Amino acid sequence: MTPNVVIIGAGFGGLYAARRLANKPANVLLIDRHNHHTFTPLLYQVATCGLDPGEIAYPLRGIFRHESNIHFQLGEVVEINAAERFVLVQTDSHMQRHAYDYLIIAAGSVTNYFGIDTLAQFAFGLKTLGEAVILRNHILKLFERATWIEDADHRQALTTFVVAGGGPTGLETAGALHELSNHVLQKEYPELGHIRPQVILVEAGQDLLAPFPKDLREAARRQLESLGVKVLLGKSIVGCNAFEVHLSDGQVIEAHTLVWAAGVRASPLAAFLGVSLKQGGRVPVQPTLEAVGVDRVYVVGDMAFLEDPQGKPYPGLIPVAKQQGMLAAQNILRREAGDTPRAFRYHDRGTMATIGRSRAVAWIYGRIPLSGYAAWLGWLFLHLVTLMGFRNRLSVFVNWVWNYLTFDHAVRIILEPQSSSRIGEADGSAGENGRQKTGQERQLK
Amino acid sequence: MTPNVVIIGAGFGGLYAARRLANKPANVLLIDRHNHHTFTPLLYQVATCGLDPGEIAYPLRGIFRHESNIHFQLGEVVEINAAERFVLVQTDSHMQRHAYDYLIIAAGSVTNYFGIDTLAQFAFGLKTLGEAVILRNHILKLFERATWIEDADHRQALTTFVVAGGGPTGLETAGALHELSNHVLQKEYPELGHIRPQVILVEAGQDLLAPFPKDLREAARRQLESLGVKVLLGKSIVGCNAFEVHLSDGQVIEAHTLVWAAGVRASPLAAFLGVSLKQGGRVPVQPTLEAVGVDRVYVVGDMAFLEDPQGKPYPGLIPVAKQQGMLAAQNILRREAGDTPRAFRYHDRGTMATIGRSRAVAWIYGRIPLSGYAAWLGWLFLHLVTLMGFRNRLSVFVNWVWNYLTFDHAVRIILEPQSSSRIGEADGSAGENGRQKTGQERQLK
Repeated sequence: MTPNVVIIGAGFGGLYAARRLANKPANVLLIDRHNHHTFTPLLYQVATCGLDPGEIAYPLRGIFRHESNIHFQLGEVVEINAAERFVLVQTDSHMQRHAYDYLIIAAGSVTNYFGIDTLAQFAFGLKTLGEAVILRNHILKLFERATWIEDADHRQALTTFVVAGGGPTGLETAGALHELSNHVLQKEYPELGHIRPQVILVEAGQDLLAPFPKDLREAARRQLESLGVKVLLGKSIVGCNAFEVHLSDGQVIEAHTLVWAAGVRASPLAAFLGVSLKQGGRVPVQPTLEAVGVDRVYVVGDMAFLEDPQGKPYPGLIPVAKQQGMLAAQNILRREAGDTPRAFRYHDRGTMATIGRSRAVAWIYGRIPLSGYAAWLGWLFLHLVTLMGFRNRLSVFVNWVWNYLTFDHAVRIILEPQSSSRIGEADGSAGENGRQKTGQERQLK
Repeated sequence: MTPNVVIIGAGFGGLYAARRLANKPANVLLIDRHNHHTFTPLLYQVATCGLDPGEIAYPLRGIFRHESNIHFQLGEVVEINAAERFVLVQTDSHMQRHAYDYLIIAAGSVTNYFGIDTLAQFAFGLKTLGEAVILRNHILKLFERATWIEDADHRQALTTFVVAGGGPTGLETAGALHELSNHVLQKEYPELGHIRPQVILVEAGQDLLAPFPKDLREAARRQLESLGVKVLLGKSIVGCNAFEVHLSDGQVIEAHTLVWAAGVRASPLAAFLGVSLKQGGRVPVQPTLEAVGVDRVYVVGDMAFLEDPQGKPYPGLIPVAKQQGMLAAQNILRREAGDTPRAFRYHDRGTMATIGRSRAVAWIYGRIPLSGYAAWLGWLFLHLVTLMGFRNRLSVFVNWVWNYLTFDHAVRIILEPQSSSRIGEADGSAGENGRQKTGQERQLK
């Protein structure tokens, strides 16, 4: 009997699990809330007008068009029943029940505001394409507003952007925001006068890019500061409102935008397994990636808690998720074939972070440090070959070359499908404060 | 004294008026509800997953970055006072008043449902980027829904698309919808079984493309039918609900999608001039494009009513709007310089309509008829050179070549910034009926 394998989530973990099972003896059902895979490392480029949403989203049915044993369901998993082996999926207005022989949970992570309500309310997350477009609209609308606000301090606050979190996403977002606001937007908003848009990166630790070696951490900070980004280390954000960000040392930054890249926690779906969760709500898994104490359920990627041979938990990185997804799929096939499952071994080809045009740091194979232009070229190349699908790759490449040559961020369009024709009404509830998200935007959290 | 010229609307009329005034002795304020110019002839490509929204939208501030006498304001004009010469603009939460010496009104047209409430409520317009994205999301969600609906008739209705209007927009939309649903989506939705998606074009007149010569009208119909689109002539749509379209002869088509391309009327701003409006709510203008009886106000494009030398009103076509925009600007400069204003003379380089891959009809200079592949190549070339901005053009070209070679429609992504993470909730109000737009979507009308 061909086993039924259900995969929850089409991020990197779930996608690579499904790919590994393509044309193998398994009936696979891949479930996701979106009809597309999102190339998340470039979400910040959508938020900062560098790329169109469609350039980093690839339709899932298109990916598996030729693999007849892979099926797709658009919907949200609302229950996992590991005892009776089924999942419940909310599709549209209907509820559907899918029985499984094996389950791979790859639902990733959600933004972690550490229980601070004002952050959940006013900060901008950057985990989905929808959030990226919301942030893009917000930034562009603040610049428009700044053109007719007469008070200079108010104008400065409208064009001040705080980014929380000194990891790769924080650095990349801060760098791109700085380029967008200083190289592109400032030229197009002569009304701003002498006001200079400002980007402030806030990191609670003493260093950026904590897992990188010391010299790369410092290179990252130096490059970010040489770009013009203000870096605040050893300070955490304790709250915010629509026009202020409050730091742990009592400092108040007047800014209408706070981008939150300071933490994630595992998808709340973890709770359905009934096991006691590890730090960040992650599910403890065996080296074979089976959830500890839950038969036939594999957990991979950001949701899985597994320690490496040194006793350090594997980080929530894309390569980890990919490799775990593939191994979970492989172990299911091995088990069905009567073979011994394999233990996870991470092949670390390196990590990198880009800091705007021609600035980056990379740590190749966890041994070779690289910074500046060479690291940036490496980053560019890696992302181009990793982006899925020829069409996406080519089109992204065209945009990138164009941006590089011209400092242009061409996708500076405010796109609000549900309210685009009535600007006054659309923002009515937000009023002038500029950051209060609407009820529906908050749903995204 | 340099005159203050206010231009309402950054469609083709307003954009070309502003371009004509660039670096001329005039302080120009261009006002639009969107921060971008939309290349409207390709909206149907966004709705049918062929192009990303950003590929047909060009940020207005970017266009006029180097023209220091052109200013831009994002906002909605809520009053025109021609007696005291000012306009009121709603920006964000504020109201702003702009005095003018000359006013160019180029606010275009809105979808005309001819007072049929059910159409306004359930039909999809295709006038803005936001509407195009809403239609795209809708189509993709219907296909997803069709995968788990078991009743065959219901499935057929979910994948049946009615397009109202036999003009170029209707033809192009019908052709592209047919290609999308039959060449792309059907392959990716094996769950649909033997159901074949269907596209039906409904035109009240006896011919498609009424202003074209007889042989081209017939060529258009033949090409559309050879593609697989069902063409119903001489029937009008008298109403609809979420899952049916009602025709004038009593026929009922079971379809969850009605795209309305069957009529427009002038922007309601026309009413502020206090003159008696012509057919379709258009403002009567003199040959110089000054509104009849309203000093210093010029009206161009879809909003203007002017008869050609044969006594036929100029049609609402892009070249007419462009040429009128330029002439209005020029006449303002002439009047300031003490020169006699010029009368409008339309230079007709031809009209064309494309009907999917390698099918089109063109009527060059109003004399040379062209159909089939040659017309399609002409259409392709014309749109590429007309699309504004190198970046957009190159990226659009890449996508088109890719689509042509692969029959791919790569942008099959459901993107709902305000509700992307909760599919169940997002559509809760819509329920299963599939076409009921939400309150906010209706705001677009």
